[in-house]
Amino acid sequence: MTIDETARPRGKRGPYAKSEEKRGLILEAALEVFAQSGYRAGSLRDVALKVGMSEAGLLHHFQNKSALLAAVLERRDDHARDMIDFSGPGRKTLTDLIELVRYNSTIPGVVELYCILSAEATSPDHPAHAFFVDRYQDTTSSITGAFTDMEQRGQLRPGINPAAASRALIALMDGLQVQWLLNRDSVDMVEDIRGFLSAVATEPF
Amino acid sequence: MTIDETARPRGKRGPYAKSEEKRGLILEAALEVFAQSGYRAGSLRDVALKVGMSEAGLLHHFQNKSALLAAVLERRDDHARDMIDFSGPGRKTLTDLIELVRYNSTIPGVVELYCILSAEATSPDHPAHAFFVDRYQDTTSSITGAFTDMEQRGQLRPGINPAAASRALIALMDGLQVQWLLNRDSVDMVEDIRGFLSAVATEPF
Repeated sequence: MTIDETARPRGKRGPYAKSEEKRGLILEAALEVFAQSGYRAGSLRDVALKVGMSEAGLLHHFQNKSALLAAVLERRDDHARDMIDFSGPGRKTLTDLIELVRYNSTIPGVVELYCILSAEATSPDHPAHAFFVDRYQDTTSSITGAFTDMEQRGQLRPGINPAAASRALIALMDGLQVQWLLNRDSVDMVEDIRGFLSAVATEPF
Repeated sequence: MTIDETARPRGKRGPYAKSEEKRGLILEAALEVFAQSGYRAGSLRDVALKVGMSEAGLLHHFQNKSALLAAVLERRDDHARDMIDFSGPGRKTLTDLIELVRYNSTIPGVVELYCILSAEATSPDHPAHAFFVDRYQDTTSSITGAFTDMEQRGQLRPGINPAAASRALIALMDGLQVQWLLNRDSVDMVEDIRGFLSAVATEPF
């Protein structure tokens, strides 16, 4: 489900295709602006300038600012999914995830956007609440699948539960991001995630 | 360091003592309101009503809404510290932390407030940024101390680094809160934290 499904035109021809294309351009521009400036400093005005539109014109493509921001994260999720092989062996999926963490550490502005929006969206009345509930459910399920595959291949340390390991890995990625954003020198996210995976596996990552 | 040290009167007599007392009443009232209603639904108006003041009168005691909210979390940290014995054996400190997680699961509104404010405060220009940077540094250091004590007593699994375990435990607590706030049925925070501690220790918690 997309965060602004109701606002997204379903057709693909004529003005709809154009609107869809414009929408994609806005999201890529927004991703760049927030990656560079972060959630607080990055403004819709900068995004609008980048695509040669007014702020009002920009918001015409989305329901509101929250919906635009959530769509930006959805686009970032699409990019992330391109980096991760969910169909192969579980150990490969988790190795890809380490690379995603490495990539994230090059885009602190987007990490900040994600961090703040996911926290705000925990409130049931937040416009992006359903998006994040679904997102966490999907991610937890995919990563549980990867750990289950490792378990079946005898690559998981005895006593490690795949679903608990999945919840822990996601929590760890989220929590380390907060520590890293607060103080870049306090944590090496890649090494800490690698350490966690090595601790639950029979062979180091 | 307190978040609004500049706003807090340093004297303890006459009108200052009164102001200090009022400040404490406001914080306890705010803690109750946010515990019940959460960050978005809980309003300063409700807090003001509870202590029989106007919103303006309430904000007179703090620099702004963010400072009040951070002071609420500081007060909650004080309560948390009362629950945790940081001077005894490390294993006792970490067992106390499990009880803190159990307590947190009874006050979702405060957890939500903490979760959102810590995420927003990752921006260097946020009024509570310095407070959270200090808070994470202090907490990481205290918990590293607990794991180091366990290591010295031979209670930590070989290869587990106390500082990395401390960062991971804090990240896990933060990250699981997001998952729990999004979907209460998706995670048992107490059991997942207990599972993590058991995995790094020589004896289960």
